[in-house]
Amino acid sequence: MTRAQLIQQIESKRSVLCVGLDTDIKKIPAHLLGMEDPVFEFNKAIIDATVDYAVAYKPNIAFYESMGVAGWQSLEKTIQYLNSNYPEVFTIADAKRGDIGNTSKMYAEAYFNAFEFDSVTVAPYMGSDSVTPFLAFEDKWVILLALTSNQGALDFQLAENKEGEALFEQVVKTAQEWATPDQLMFVLGATKTEYLERVRAAAPDSFFLVPGVGAQGGSLRDVLTKATNKDYGVLVNSTRGIIYKSSARDFAEIAKIAAEELQREMEIILF
Amino acid sequence: MTRAQLIQQIESKRSVLCVGLDTDIKKIPAHLLGMEDPVFEFNKAIIDATVDYAVAYKPNIAFYESMGVAGWQSLEKTIQYLNSNYPEVFTIADAKRGDIGNTSKMYAEAYFNAFEFDSVTVAPYMGSDSVTPFLAFEDKWVILLALTSNQGALDFQLAENKEGEALFEQVVKTAQEWATPDQLMFVLGATKTEYLERVRAAAPDSFFLVPGVGAQGGSLRDVLTKATNKDYGVLVNSTRGIIYKSSARDFAEIAKIAAEELQREMEIILF
Repeated sequence: MTRAQLIQQIESKRSVLCVGLDTDIKKIPAHLLGMEDPVFEFNKAIIDATVDYAVAYKPNIAFYESMGVAGWQSLEKTIQYLNSNYPEVFTIADAKRGDIGNTSKMYAEAYFNAFEFDSVTVAPYMGSDSVTPFLAFEDKWVILLALTSNQGALDFQLAENKEGEALFEQVVKTAQEWATPDQLMFVLGATKTEYLERVRAAAPDSFFLVPGVGAQGGSLRDVLTKATNKDYGVLVNSTRGIIYKSSARDFAEIAKIAAEELQREMEIILF
Repeated sequence: MTRAQLIQQIESKRSVLCVGLDTDIKKIPAHLLGMEDPVFEFNKAIIDATVDYAVAYKPNIAFYESMGVAGWQSLEKTIQYLNSNYPEVFTIADAKRGDIGNTSKMYAEAYFNAFEFDSVTVAPYMGSDSVTPFLAFEDKWVILLALTSNQGALDFQLAENKEGEALFEQVVKTAQEWATPDQLMFVLGATKTEYLERVRAAAPDSFFLVPGVGAQGGSLRDVLTKATNKDYGVLVNSTRGIIYKSSARDFAEIAKIAAEELQREMEIILF
């Protein structure tokens, strides 16, 4: 997907909402468990219910991987369902991969060819040749970890070099030498309110994938007023506040209401 | 596997060799391609041929993941084959995972429960809560990226803080607060000869997984003289120099000779 297509979708839905598909067999409604593939059925229902309000879907790969071969089958069906039924939607494989060049190339083939995602999240620790193989695919995106939403972000991401630049800033600065904002986004945790403007300043034209709103405590208003740019420039992820809001038969309906509420807030602030 | 069991195996085989199973369907001998699962057949033959000389096997997960569901089936058969036939061998899922706590827990379940590996490689960028969920499993290991063997390692891993400590040293120092050397190893690239002693000094009791000998240019002698400790303390990985030395019908036999040669060199220097 191109940047222009993504922006067009944001304008048409008046939303920057990304729905996280962290689908856990232990948390999905009991009535689905008798079906052949409960994880896929859950995802399908959530997608159908929320797609008018969401511009992106983000399966968290760990949740599928933890189920072994069956999990990968559920993931495959999910991405195929999204691509067949809602080709306008931006898809994110939240995989946080990254390895030496020949290995990152394999991961890129996994997410861009074997599964046809639009983007994959990548960890920056191993540097340029761990990231650039993902950039060799036309209209596919790297979403590079910069400042994450978790407590552990404090351990290394804020470590400053002699010039007073934090590691996450070094990552944002250096990575922009590898790719344009047409192919490269950054992960920026909503919980790190005090850094939102600093990261925006470091990457004025980039899109940010923003987790951490809701259950993790980040403020949607802060993100939408401090981290946006003229092209909107953010995809705000919500997972638990949408997909697990109800664990009863009405889960999809309740997810729809939660997604619509977030979309309304976004519309009021952004448009 | 416990540290004592690992050391016992090293002493019994007089080897610290780890064989990388970066099995690429495009590189394996043509005569295997007609079989039901060529990737597994290749791995099985390599394992059987080299197991007298190797103490560890390291499937590189990207190579399996790139094949979609079929790849995960090959990986599952490979780890089951190793655990059933050679339970004394140390197994490493080279996955370089790492995410927020609840997600890392899922990855840990994938590699320690769904597949029964002894260890998994983990990226440190997201800090403590991205690593500690892997440490909640008895006799299972985290192998944390410290200084990797690739060119991109220069981008961030060598960035120094105000005290002149490189990022990889901060990682090694901080991570030792999370786990003992009975559960935590570090990745240390053999190509970074000038840092081998520095990393050993920072983690005197830890085991290091050392890639980069052979095709990537690292020196086995340097590693075995500069990075070892009283418990040997290293697992030296070789992949291309063993598994792809021949792509003909004799590939396993040639792999055996290559593994034996490396074991001999190790025996001479270490024992």
